[in-house]
Amino acid sequence: MKSTYRVLPLRNVRIEDQFWSKYGELIRDVVIPYQWDALNDRIADAEPSYAIRNFRIAAGQEVGQFGGFVFQDSDLAKWLEAVAYSLTTLKDPSLERIADEAIDLIADAQQEDGYINTYFTIKAPDKRWSNLADCHELYVAGHMIEAAVAYYEATGKRKFLDVVSCFADYIDTVFGIEDGKIKGYDGHQEIELALVKLYKVTGQEKYLRLSQYFLDQRGQEPNFFVEEWEARGQIPFWPGQSVGPASRPNLKYNQSYTPVREQKEAHGHAVRAVYMYTAMADVAAQTGDEGLLQACRTLWDNIVDKQMYITGGIGSTHHGEAFTFDYDLPNDTIYAETCASIGLIFFAQRMLQIESNSKYADVIERALYNNVIGSMSLDGKHYFYVNPLEVWPKASEGNPGKHHVKSVRQKWFGCSCCPPNVARLVASLGEYIYSVSDTELVVNQYIGGVASATIGGQNLEIRQETNYPWDGRIKIELTPENEHTFTLGLRIPDWCQHATLRINDEECPLSDIMRDGYARVERTWKAGDIVQLDLAMDVQLIQSHPQLRVNAGKVAIQRGPLVYCVEEFDNDAPLASITVLTDQPLSARFDSDLLGGMMIIEGDALLDEQGDWGNELYRPLKTVTRPVKLRAIPYNSWGNREAGEMSVWIRRK
Amino acid sequence: MKSTYRVLPLRNVRIEDQFWSKYGELIRDVVIPYQWDALNDRIADAEPSYAIRNFRIAAGQEVGQFGGFVFQDSDLAKWLEAVAYSLTTLKDPSLERIADEAIDLIADAQQEDGYINTYFTIKAPDKRWSNLADCHELYVAGHMIEAAVAYYEATGKRKFLDVVSCFADYIDTVFGIEDGKIKGYDGHQEIELALVKLYKVTGQEKYLRLSQYFLDQRGQEPNFFVEEWEARGQIPFWPGQSVGPASRPNLKYNQSYTPVREQKEAHGHAVRAVYMYTAMADVAAQTGDEGLLQACRTLWDNIVDKQMYITGGIGSTHHGEAFTFDYDLPNDTIYAETCASIGLIFFAQRMLQIESNSKYADVIERALYNNVIGSMSLDGKHYFYVNPLEVWPKASEGNPGKHHVKSVRQKWFGCSCCPPNVARLVASLGEYIYSVSDTELVVNQYIGGVASATIGGQNLEIRQETNYPWDGRIKIELTPENEHTFTLGLRIPDWCQHATLRINDEECPLSDIMRDGYARVERTWKAGDIVQLDLAMDVQLIQSHPQLRVNAGKVAIQRGPLVYCVEEFDNDAPLASITVLTDQPLSARFDSDLLGGMMIIEGDALLDEQGDWGNELYRPLKTVTRPVKLRAIPYNSWGNREAGEMSVWIRRK
Repeated sequence: MKSTYRVLPLRNVRIEDQFWSKYGELIRDVVIPYQWDALNDRIADAEPSYAIRNFRIAAGQEVGQFGGFVFQDSDLAKWLEAVAYSLTTLKDPSLERIADEAIDLIADAQQEDGYINTYFTIKAPDKRWSNLADCHELYVAGHMIEAAVAYYEATGKRKFLDVVSCFADYIDTVFGIEDGKIKGYDGHQEIELALVKLYKVTGQEKYLRLSQYFLDQRGQEPNFFVEEWEARGQIPFWPGQSVGPASRPNLKYNQSYTPVREQKEAHGHAVRAVYMYTAMADVAAQTGDEGLLQACRTLWDNIVDKQMYITGGIGSTHHGEAFTFDYDLPNDTIYAETCASIGLIFFAQRMLQIESNSKYADVIERALYNNVIGSMSLDGKHYFYVNPLEVWPKASEGNPGKHHVKSVRQKWFGCSCCPPNVARLVASLGEYIYSVSDTELVVNQYIGGVASATIGGQNLEIRQETNYPWDGRIKIELTPENEHTFTLGLRIPDWCQHATLRINDEECPLSDIMRDGYARVERTWKAGDIVQLDLAMDVQLIQSHPQLRVNAGKVAIQRGPLVYCVEEFDNDAPLASITVLTDQPLSARFDSDLLGGMMIIEGDALLDEQGDWGNELYRPLKTVTRPVKLRAIPYNSWGNREAGEMSVWIRRK
Repeated sequence: MKSTYRVLPLRNVRIEDQFWSKYGELIRDVVIPYQWDALNDRIADAEPSYAIRNFRIAAGQEVGQFGGFVFQDSDLAKWLEAVAYSLTTLKDPSLERIADEAIDLIADAQQEDGYINTYFTIKAPDKRWSNLADCHELYVAGHMIEAAVAYYEATGKRKFLDVVSCFADYIDTVFGIEDGKIKGYDGHQEIELALVKLYKVTGQEKYLRLSQYFLDQRGQEPNFFVEEWEARGQIPFWPGQSVGPASRPNLKYNQSYTPVREQKEAHGHAVRAVYMYTAMADVAAQTGDEGLLQACRTLWDNIVDKQMYITGGIGSTHHGEAFTFDYDLPNDTIYAETCASIGLIFFAQRMLQIESNSKYADVIERALYNNVIGSMSLDGKHYFYVNPLEVWPKASEGNPGKHHVKSVRQKWFGCSCCPPNVARLVASLGEYIYSVSDTELVVNQYIGGVASATIGGQNLEIRQETNYPWDGRIKIELTPENEHTFTLGLRIPDWCQHATLRINDEECPLSDIMRDGYARVERTWKAGDIVQLDLAMDVQLIQSHPQLRVNAGKVAIQRGPLVYCVEEFDNDAPLASITVLTDQPLSARFDSDLLGGMMIIEGDALLDEQGDWGNELYRPLKTVTRPVKLRAIPYNSWGNREAGEMSVWIRRK
């Protein structure tokens, strides 16, 4: 079963949206320039990146030592990819010139045989491919390929694409099951999905086959990573780790414990996992490989039904930045790395083109509106790596088990994978709005703007207007070049309890036309047809499954796609002393003065009194409460005022 | 202000108690022989101890490598101390012979200059005293001294006492502020309290002065541990740690961040902390040092009012086995090491002789009846090192942040400090029952048996009968040799809401005679006087301070001194789905069939239904509950049946 849907490409979509346009501008005007400064080590008081400097040294333009992590090159690649998407939506010659120069620098740092990696070029040229488990060489290659494909599609310039094709051709000579090749794969998956992109843009089947090889080989016995570790004398790469049997690779950590088709539950490092699942869906979509697709479905269900935070975050522990096990979703020792949610969005996006089931678009929406944009400050210059659902700043300072949970966004990170990942996702947001097939236009996300598509050979313009996510009304005007029969699919989100659809002011009952979570209207469309969808956007109290123990007796507040949180700034502390009254309605109100404007939610609550306590830590139960007002703001906006407590889950009466 | 109260020595107290006698027998008949086997590496499937083997090697009786931790000798010392207490209460010639042989072995391993330590003798004789921060040399010496003092008091045999006196004399020549001496102190406090014991039994003031020196010197600038670390080239002792600035010693970890008198909050490794506070109280009691005593009071209040679990456990994180900060008492990532509670009991016991305030005896009771005896299985052969208040076995396996929280007691540990510590505490329990002064007999703990005391030069026999902790009635018969006027102090525990006192069947109102938490009856006592104290022992629901966020909306069940818990074995799971009804009475019932017999508590509760859930992880709030019976057992007996969930804190309606 090959994919029948395809993403409407970025160049066909122009976002004009009261919510998202400002994010697009932020990425273009602030984030991309800011991150370029970061890559050039020009941010005061932030950890240096070394990324550009490493390339200069590798290209022979400067003398010095390699700096940063072994995978530092990938930060530049992700930045270039974000630039490519940005240039797709808005030409910017001076930015394009900077990018061209960066690409020239990469080309200059490329070795004779096609190899690109500043760490090994500068520091250990004789150690190439000697530690695939730890050293991210193919991971970095993957990001280079993704960036080059995006840049080619944005500008039509071939230079970067040729550079990475040459690199990929070289990699193809090194890896494979054939005699004389390394029968390995990377510790951090990424090249697998990148090679499918390279295949699609070049049409070269060898890249698809190489991606398939990396996936198929992973987890086969004898295990490559164990053999590699034995071969290098049982020595781990990272300093400070023990040598010998205790350093034996953790095969669950990088999803190589069993062949990928046999994996049933999400295990290990969350970013690696979802990048791999994305590639599995990519290859399944290209080849029709049912076994691979079935594994994707099983892994998807495991994540979404058992291992995903309500914000779309994944990864329950900072030990290995990893999944743990079903229903283990602690809010305060959480990991929920930004990159992992972005990877989950990639996985969802691939599955959505194969199956056009709203469950994938729902998760894209959940992760995007909550975890992902919440990771970035409203000024675009500060980021969370870990996205907690419960923060007590004193504990982040004073309890070592929570040191990784920051209560304030950071300027940059030594391992700064997340900020450029947010930039490239938001810059490519246009790709997430529509899917098309030969007979169907599917609206996956409600984001205002204008798009053009071709369905069954006929051109069509789509204009979407909405005040989403603050309001559930969406107006879509279709302008086919000629009258034309096709199906319009409109996602009815999982959070929506009641929706109405009107076409040219005539109500269209949903009951008969719902399929896989979309209202699918087949008719002959003509220019000027107006579709109006009204999604009831009530304030909802959400509970979690009883097996998810930490949330027992608690509720989260959600309105539309937005998960809310309470902050100490607006409420009495400790927040754990607050009980929300579930029999009183909560009300939503747009506060245009608050941080650029947002819908806030207010209601009645009870506060456990502290005043009647003496010094004692424990006493016989004597509940003394007083009524207080509770105020919640969207989770994605937390931490933009003073540092303080924050919680998504609130005790309920 | 010097101490006016003194402990009634162990040899004066014979425990005959339905609750405690079996523990005494268990220690004597099972634990001491079992631990002797462990020290000799004769427990199948358990981690070897190497303790005896190390001594044989150090004594030249065997050839081999040192095994175990650098502080392994202390396990033998603590075992000998437990043996000494056991021999005090019951002669056992064959056990005494084994102990004598072990002492001969220690003496044979002693070096010419008095030094004893098998690690350095076998492995690094030239490295003596070169790393006080990490290597526990003085800590081990302290345990040897404690054991020798106890053995001398038990048997009158001087050999071991002479061996450790010689060692202490040597240490006195090595450490001090005088020129040519090391101006240091041990990374793990212990010798400080041991030297006070040695001073008391020998009358040699130099041991008290040496203890004072170690306390006074700690935390002075320039910091000894920083200088020592610089001197050895910034290299840490433990393998796998980084070298250089990152390995700079954490001075809060071992309470050397500031002089001990200036410490206001409990910080760092919990066992080290409370051993140090114990020694501070010891020295204050001997010298009348008000500044030191005031520091003890401040630190005591900080622990008990802000950093102690309801079970008497201390230490909120396994990172450094340490205190974290006020009101940070997570139940599931807890440490609450057995040894730390035992150290807290030591600290309380010292303060109790200085101040005779029930708050110290209350904490002894809390820690003893809950955390400490709960650490040992009912068969005496399995132990917890970490004593959690909430256990989900799957999380202990599957979430690395909880790997240290075991759901099943272990046979022995590589670092097996806790089991022999329990043995020595329980074997010396007789010391915790009474305090005496020249005019007062104080009953601190309600444990049946017979004791003899001398008050104001007059001999007195005390017979205590009780079914405590199952029942709150205590009968005490006093038999003074001659009619004699003194004060009898009876602790009214902090958990007791109502108490009545009858003397020779005549009610004695408590209101006028309460002082520092004790009913203090001054009268002329004659042989056959009967005192009957009735402590109302209701089932109580306990709440914790609102700042203790994790327990918000929850209650613990307590009856008398016993904290209760719910186990999956007796209740519906997940336990987090259970809500206890606070408006319905809970009832206590003695179940003689359950694990040797115990009071269980039963009542009505509600269970969140799981049956109406589908696959979804989150849904709009729809509470569906059904009534269930809740059954709680004493916390100290948890984990003696099948592994499963356990929780002390339960959601309340």
